[in-house]
Amino acid sequence: MTDDGSKIVPLAEVYAFVVRCMGVVGINEDDAGALADLLVSADYRGHYSHGLNRLYIYIQDVKSGTTASNAKPEIVKETIATALVDGNNVLGPIVGRFCIDLAIKKAKDAGIGWVSARNSNHFGIAGWYGLRAVDSGMIGMAFTNASPLLVPTRATKAVFGTNPICVAAPAKDGDSFVLDMATTVVAYGKVEMAHRKGEMIPPGWGMDASGKETQDPGECQCLFPLGGTERTSGYKGYGLSMMVELFCGILSGSHYGSNNRIWKDAQEKADLGQCYVAIDPAAFEPGFADRLSDLMNMCRTLEPAEGETEVLVAGDPERQHMAKCDKQGGILYHPNVIKYAVRHQPNCPQLNHYLTFIFMWNHVLHQAGVILKT
Amino acid sequence: MTDDGSKIVPLAEVYAFVVRCMGVVGINEDDAGALADLLVSADYRGHYSHGLNRLYIYIQDVKSGTTASNAKPEIVKETIATALVDGNNVLGPIVGRFCIDLAIKKAKDAGIGWVSARNSNHFGIAGWYGLRAVDSGMIGMAFTNASPLLVPTRATKAVFGTNPICVAAPAKDGDSFVLDMATTVVAYGKVEMAHRKGEMIPPGWGMDASGKETQDPGECQCLFPLGGTERTSGYKGYGLSMMVELFCGILSGSHYGSNNRIWKDAQEKADLGQCYVAIDPAAFEPGFADRLSDLMNMCRTLEPAEGETEVLVAGDPERQHMAKCDKQGGILYHPNVIKYAVRHQPNCPQLNHYLTFIFMWNHVLHQAGVILKT
Repeated sequence: MTDDGSKIVPLAEVYAFVVRCMGVVGINEDDAGALADLLVSADYRGHYSHGLNRLYIYIQDVKSGTTASNAKPEIVKETIATALVDGNNVLGPIVGRFCIDLAIKKAKDAGIGWVSARNSNHFGIAGWYGLRAVDSGMIGMAFTNASPLLVPTRATKAVFGTNPICVAAPAKDGDSFVLDMATTVVAYGKVEMAHRKGEMIPPGWGMDASGKETQDPGECQCLFPLGGTERTSGYKGYGLSMMVELFCGILSGSHYGSNNRIWKDAQEKADLGQCYVAIDPAAFEPGFADRLSDLMNMCRTLEPAEGETEVLVAGDPERQHMAKCDKQGGILYHPNVIKYAVRHQPNCPQLNHYLTFIFMWNHVLHQAGVILKT
Repeated sequence: MTDDGSKIVPLAEVYAFVVRCMGVVGINEDDAGALADLLVSADYRGHYSHGLNRLYIYIQDVKSGTTASNAKPEIVKETIATALVDGNNVLGPIVGRFCIDLAIKKAKDAGIGWVSARNSNHFGIAGWYGLRAVDSGMIGMAFTNASPLLVPTRATKAVFGTNPICVAAPAKDGDSFVLDMATTVVAYGKVEMAHRKGEMIPPGWGMDASGKETQDPGECQCLFPLGGTERTSGYKGYGLSMMVELFCGILSGSHYGSNNRIWKDAQEKADLGQCYVAIDPAAFEPGFADRLSDLMNMCRTLEPAEGETEVLVAGDPERQHMAKCDKQGGILYHPNVIKYAVRHQPNCPQLNHYLTFIFMWNHVLHQAGVILKT
């Protein structure tokens, strides 16, 4: 336990906690394992906004029945290299694991696998799917549409979600390139985290409900696209978010654009569209991993600008965070994240499940040496 | 002829002029037609930096022998859905046309075609290749690496090119989504055009040779990635440029990163890497074009922000420019672009070709009603 009340929790504990929580709401161990691995990965990689911070929403969606707990994704149509998948409204990571594994299998046969899915749900960090392909020696990509948050250039109302792009690729000796980025200036989770920590957000991040720029995370209702305003090429970020929607909603026939539900107040199912791609480097020029390592090191060895200590490549900040976790024996959680996770459980309609959740949460914290006052 | 000396030249004249110029340096009519169509398209779509403005470089590359004039691209290896192509150092548009047509053919068979090419050359506007797929009812993508211009976040030296991304898709009734963007804040051609017009560039675009920000286009040696500085998420644009390099140089085995030559002073061949993709929407949910049109109109019908007249989608500014050209009977050229094209021919080592070029140029201008003093 640190001075500010932060707490280090071993990865295996966080994993087991998520599996048990999801078990209470009827998700089998294998499926819950996909979500648990995803959430642990997010926190382990330093993306706290997309880890345990989000667990209560997944629980809530399953408990309210807006996400299905007893179904499986299925292939609607396919070629040797492509597939259209119906997620049958199960948890996003269950749909995503099915789709990226299908894409990897197709890439082994045809050099590439391109899978578009509808009827899915929030899938967490996109990087998790890309890394699954990397583990098979493949380039992996993942995209998802999401609830409206991004305001198109020259407009005042959100149409697109944060619509992330992940592209991951295997380099030498376990090294990898892992680009995992929202097509908004930042992921909305960063606004949530600022709000939770009581901090203001920087200029150029968000707008209020009327479409005016704001630095108050509590007022921030929507986000600028990557690039910011039109003057600074924000239309490129807007175009990229629409590209993601093209691969997700438009290709799969799911909800798209402003037809997507407002996530947290959801009474209806999400019907998100997603896209998963695997490419086998072996179908192209031999020596892929060597060249990628060389390119990454070409960047890492650049002389840093004044005041900077090092030049990084996509995936390096996460690697640094994971190394830190490994050294300290687990993931460091800010006390507000813990309090928040607990405080929001009353939103769940079934109190016995809520109490079970609190019990388990405290159990984990207790094992880790902390007793929370709820 | 307008007040400032600008001149409207019919598209067919520009096309014929380019074919004739390339014929003089030994490019056959079919191959020259690819370049001519590409350059006309660039100017017609309003991307003057990538049209006639660039012709002299293509001519120079062929004349100096750094680009081959008597070769054809060939397939090195392939699966039903992928191919690795050796461009054999012919002009970029000849390589690109071969590759995107191959990708389209594969997409017809397998739902998707993913082609990576090495040993290629500058390919002009990426949109031209995407639109070729759109003409076949497909989603089309094109990527290329390029001479170092983009400075990685926290560094002071360029490693990546402008590394453009094109994604184009067919909507209803001839409408289309056409994203064609450099992963730098702007394409370098916009800096060149500012220099030619004697204008300063906005803050956040470029850096001088020492890696310091500058607004003088004459001093501008390299560019910020999309997003600008680290504070405004420039590392995302840096990551996207590296993603493009992954698809191009790393997958194909061409030059990559800072191994790419400095374009204009080239004594050696470029060996650029490129990537071309076609996806058949018919392999996914029926009704693709309807949904895409609906999404595009969802954006176009948004209420514009204060001071704005309309919300656009990627491809709309180009459509507006093409409509203007159609109305005025051709492409309006700024006199400085014309003067520049002529002035730079002395760089060509073979004077007789230079004179032939000037002659043809004047011939076209003469037909269009202008006699230039050279």
